[in-house]
Amino acid sequence: MELFYAYEVSPLECRLDAEESAHCVRVLRHRTGDPIDVIDGKGTLYHCQLLDDSPKGASARVLSVEEGFGGHPYRLCIGCCPTKNNDRFEWFLEKATEIGVDVIAPLIGEHSERKVYKTERALRIALSATKQSLKARIPEIMEPVSVKDFILSGDKAGTDTRGSHGDADAAGSHSNVGTGDGHSTAAPLRLIAYCFEDPSVPRISIREALEGYSGQDVTVLIGPEGDFSPAEAKLALEHGYIPVHLGTSRLRTETAAVTAAEAVYFRYM
Amino acid sequence: MELFYAYEVSPLECRLDAEESAHCVRVLRHRTGDPIDVIDGKGTLYHCQLLDDSPKGASARVLSVEEGFGGHPYRLCIGCCPTKNNDRFEWFLEKATEIGVDVIAPLIGEHSERKVYKTERALRIALSATKQSLKARIPEIMEPVSVKDFILSGDKAGTDTRGSHGDADAAGSHSNVGTGDGHSTAAPLRLIAYCFEDPSVPRISIREALEGYSGQDVTVLIGPEGDFSPAEAKLALEHGYIPVHLGTSRLRTETAAVTAAEAVYFRYM
Repeated sequence: MELFYAYEVSPLECRLDAEESAHCVRVLRHRTGDPIDVIDGKGTLYHCQLLDDSPKGASARVLSVEEGFGGHPYRLCIGCCPTKNNDRFEWFLEKATEIGVDVIAPLIGEHSERKVYKTERALRIALSATKQSLKARIPEIMEPVSVKDFILSGDKAGTDTRGSHGDADAAGSHSNVGTGDGHSTAAPLRLIAYCFEDPSVPRISIREALEGYSGQDVTVLIGPEGDFSPAEAKLALEHGYIPVHLGTSRLRTETAAVTAAEAVYFRYM
Repeated sequence: MELFYAYEVSPLECRLDAEESAHCVRVLRHRTGDPIDVIDGKGTLYHCQLLDDSPKGASARVLSVEEGFGGHPYRLCIGCCPTKNNDRFEWFLEKATEIGVDVIAPLIGEHSERKVYKTERALRIALSATKQSLKARIPEIMEPVSVKDFILSGDKAGTDTRGSHGDADAAGSHSNVGTGDGHSTAAPLRLIAYCFEDPSVPRISIREALEGYSGQDVTVLIGPEGDFSPAEAKLALEHGYIPVHLGTSRLRTETAAVTAAEAVYFRYM
């Protein structure tokens, strides 16, 4: 099964951009009349028939619709400080997308060696991994924000991190919710994976934190190689984040971020 | 904390090879008398004092010993078919080592596009990831073997996959067992992640399979991009492998292998 992404979808017709059209028509040699499967990036799959096989701007007629295609029964936002080595962070983006994530927030921490992050490549990786893993919803990649601003913005929005974290598709994300235990009114669970060995900050395992939560809306913060600063950790705790550990193994930043995504994936498996 | 690997360890002295010596002396500028931490690759950490700071063959006096350093409370063997793109398989090697794995068996399946695999680079990646993640035991990388031979060899060795899978360090692996629930006499749990949609082969989730197991010795088989052949799957089932799924997401081979390692990691967390 091959998925194409349509930047413009009406109830009757999907339009592919130049890149998707070229892939559909030049590479895969689809012709007018062929059946193709198109996603809107917001959670819906459209079974279509190719109307116009132009390699610069193909369009297709919608025959039937599947909402929440390839969705997962939770909403997950991972705030993670990009790694020095960009390949490692991009690897995390790809893997988290395959496993199932809704929002990825590149965070700039006080201990971050990388203070600048461009999201352009990240968006392409997320789109590619979404299509490859047969999902209809592309994770939102937020613009980079400081750890403190991320924590504060979440708090401003009260108990719901969605709007505050700029997830324009919050409603759409719910079409992804499948077999979750349905406590969608529970407050979001906010976790911070804090490595800094501070005896005054007792931590539980991420597994324990997730098993004790009846809702479906989880945010996890993963710090940079140098960990969060004590001030960032303190702010998070003041704003309702629960400090968790990811087990006894010492994980790289990108491995910790994928491990957090896997923990949520298994919690709702 | 920086770990060095010693190819030769006596109760009193550790010897580093040329590469480790150069890293210790030339790069990190350690000098005779400095304290250094050395692993034997079999689960033991040696706190040492540098005796000879030769960049071609350094040696150190053992001051104290920590057994099972950086170990985990389970024994995991992952049999996985190497991916077409070698980087993806090497990424799995690194991540599985960080998370915690004991044996990695590169498998050649009937549907494998890659029929040859050289373990030399894999051994270097496993060593590097072991040191980076502060573990004292390097996962064993088996020589490539066909899926069928792997299944049959495991069976020949009765209920214990260790010897048959060539894990020379089976005893050593037990020094890694920490807080496990201690049913070390339970038969090994053998799982096969079989994607092929065969209604006659009901599958449970890997989480369910692990939660129903009281032992600590787990083997998971991950197929190639083209999945296991029906004949391979049939043979596995005949030899006691339980067919499992890894959830609803469609995962790449290397992501499936890491997800299996994470599932075991969380089961014993």
